[in-house]
Amino acid sequence: MPKIVDHDARRHLIVQSVWSLIGRRGLAAVTMRELAAEAGFANGGLAPYFRDKDEILLAAFQYACDATERRLERTVEEPRGLAGLRGLCHELVPLDETRLLEARVVVAFWDRALYDPRLSSVHEATTRRWRTLMHTYLAQARAAGEVTAPVRDEDIVETLFAVVMGFQVSAVLTPEVTTAGSQIAIIEGLLASYA
Amino acid sequence: MPKIVDHDARRHLIVQSVWSLIGRRGLAAVTMRELAAEAGFANGGLAPYFRDKDEILLAAFQYACDATERRLERTVEEPRGLAGLRGLCHELVPLDETRLLEARVVVAFWDRALYDPRLSSVHEATTRRWRTLMHTYLAQARAAGEVTAPVRDEDIVETLFAVVMGFQVSAVLTPEVTTAGSQIAIIEGLLASYA
Repeated sequence: MPKIVDHDARRHLIVQSVWSLIGRRGLAAVTMRELAAEAGFANGGLAPYFRDKDEILLAAFQYACDATERRLERTVEEPRGLAGLRGLCHELVPLDETRLLEARVVVAFWDRALYDPRLSSVHEATTRRWRTLMHTYLAQARAAGEVTAPVRDEDIVETLFAVVMGFQVSAVLTPEVTTAGSQIAIIEGLLASYA
Repeated sequence: MPKIVDHDARRHLIVQSVWSLIGRRGLAAVTMRELAAEAGFANGGLAPYFRDKDEILLAAFQYACDATERRLERTVEEPRGLAGLRGLCHELVPLDETRLLEARVVVAFWDRALYDPRLSSVHEATTRRWRTLMHTYLAQARAAGEVTAPVRDEDIVETLFAVVMGFQVSAVLTPEVTTAGSQIAIIEGLLASYA
């Protein structure tokens, strides 16, 4: 009988073990050989799964996004309304070591997505999903009277979204200013201003 | 007489001609050879000025920052108070083609700065200057009664700063959502909320 290999599980295993290497040293400094070694494959062993570093980065980005969604489901029971909006913002920003590592992968991803349509279309789809979710929670918050400010929903979502994106960079590059406490205070201040 | 070469002028010339190449195709895809060709140098001709791509990226980042300061001086006559704060935010976000190109250089710079202390210390110094300038304008705006909201100055500056950082990415990667009009509306909305 031919050996049955679960390619999806293998891909997942590879991504899990290499995304922290990207996070620690940056994609630019890491070779395919090192990525294979980190995942426990022989040199060239990644070829059946990933053609190049950008494909690995793409998988790492999707892994980080999936992790965000799983955390959201775990921390906010039945997320909706203002609590859902707050919970989503908290999960999207780099408040702890895990998310700071994810932020490094995300910034590397942005840089490559600027020039690679494969990556930019995934970025577009992912951010569309986050934006749509923010709009859904915001509409629920309006209906529940939790948000009453005469500010356009679009502007509220785009303000929160810009802040979430900005923190990905600042929390890693100026950590003494952009602390977890500062990030939470700013999100709370914005949500309070929409009450 | 030995030929006198103005090395500073040469460095400036190189940066001016290569930063658009980085902006168009991304640092990762560009070789030192191509950078030399773009600047009108022979292959290897950049070596006396820049040791590697990161040094060129560093110079390109500083060039973009200097351009921002020059624009600020030109557009806001005697910038101070709320007008200064608004003008600075407008100059820092990618509202037109020039600044969208600068944003691409900035995102490439962030990615490398995550792992290179030379670059991260320049990022730290630059953002400290922008933050200090925001604090100065904000204090003037408070003194003039243009800002009266019971929000900590630190939170106002960090909110505006996060938004400015976030727009660098979103204006390039999701341009149909993060338009110039949307960016200005969001900055105006925040400034109005601090009135």
